[in-house]
Amino acid sequence: MKSTDTPRSHVQRRGARSNTREHLIRAGLESVLENGWAGTSVDKVLTTAGVPKGSFYHYFGSKDDFGFALLETYQAYFLRRLERCFGARPNGVNPSFTHKLAAFLSESTVGMRRFRWRRGCLVGTLGQEVAGLHEGFRKRLDASIRDWEAQLAASIRMAQDGGEVRANFDADRLARSFWAAWEGAVLRARLARSAAPLVLVVEDFDQLIHI
Amino acid sequence: MKSTDTPRSHVQRRGARSNTREHLIRAGLESVLENGWAGTSVDKVLTTAGVPKGSFYHYFGSKDDFGFALLETYQAYFLRRLERCFGARPNGVNPSFTHKLAAFLSESTVGMRRFRWRRGCLVGTLGQEVAGLHEGFRKRLDASIRDWEAQLAASIRMAQDGGEVRANFDADRLARSFWAAWEGAVLRARLARSAAPLVLVVEDFDQLIHI
Repeated sequence: MKSTDTPRSHVQRRGARSNTREHLIRAGLESVLENGWAGTSVDKVLTTAGVPKGSFYHYFGSKDDFGFALLETYQAYFLRRLERCFGARPNGVNPSFTHKLAAFLSESTVGMRRFRWRRGCLVGTLGQEVAGLHEGFRKRLDASIRDWEAQLAASIRMAQDGGEVRANFDADRLARSFWAAWEGAVLRARLARSAAPLVLVVEDFDQLIHI
Repeated sequence: MKSTDTPRSHVQRRGARSNTREHLIRAGLESVLENGWAGTSVDKVLTTAGVPKGSFYHYFGSKDDFGFALLETYQAYFLRRLERCFGARPNGVNPSFTHKLAAFLSESTVGMRRFRWRRGCLVGTLGQEVAGLHEGFRKRLDASIRDWEAQLAASIRMAQDGGEVRANFDADRLARSFWAAWEGAVLRARLARSAAPLVLVVEDFDQLIHI
């Protein structure tokens, strides 16, 4: 630490440290979501985050370690979003599955539109580059989608218990179908710069489960 | 031309030229399908194709021009595949739409398995990187998928005319849904290294249109 620095408390220093890490992760997510993994350089992330190079290797052992941290942050954020949209409500008043789907669609559309359709899904983006990445990425990406499937399947089962969705449908299979269609629709929405592909997937799915 | 070269006829020279271009495109497709656009360097493509650097700029004005040529080649190949799987048969004996879907699934699975699930779809791969690419890419990628949609919709209409699929289904809409789900499934198949996601999409679609 240079002598000109104002002495800071332990708590302040820890706060600054975790802020630096967060800044790096935020800048990394923005870059990978727009430009992909190969299109993201550590140097550019550092510039965007306003962090000196030495700091990066203080927090992450390598670019791969950074990538794993990005995935972990993204996955935590996405699972919170799924819980918010598809989970049981703490107050016990449960919206219909149709309303839950609509809430997820609305959040997703607002999010994609905010960034003018430039940002997709981290799992979809890294997934397209998986052949060139560390094998650990493939496993974590695969596990990420399996978590989404489990969370959606649980919500479908709740709708089956409530009599909204027919009990003889396979909730796990429906959830797998939904995420495949959703990932494809996110890609299509970026290309078309339109919410229409997202709306289509949700309408199809809503219709399918209510047959 | 160096004096040590054996003189070649005009036709031979033209053949060599078109071979060089084809080698470059083949090497470029392999690289982009595995590593994405940002992960593909012109230098590496040249090394793989065994072509000197000067030649690249003889055939392509820039890396972007090369990318457009890759897309054009891929699109032509993919539309031929769709025609083979979903088109009308020249002998007039038309397989059912279910058989056509199965043929497409089989070709796709064989193709992906051959490269050990390392290669995805060019449109899906470039689509994930579209924010960092020339705007022309977005438009061409979007147009590529619209061509696939049109070709599939035509095949669905044929099945409607033959009474196999209900006439009140919107063929264009069905085709849009299929390609969204398919692109997502290709991603999932690469991550899972398994044909299961592709099989699922085709089974779902086959069931849906035969309701």
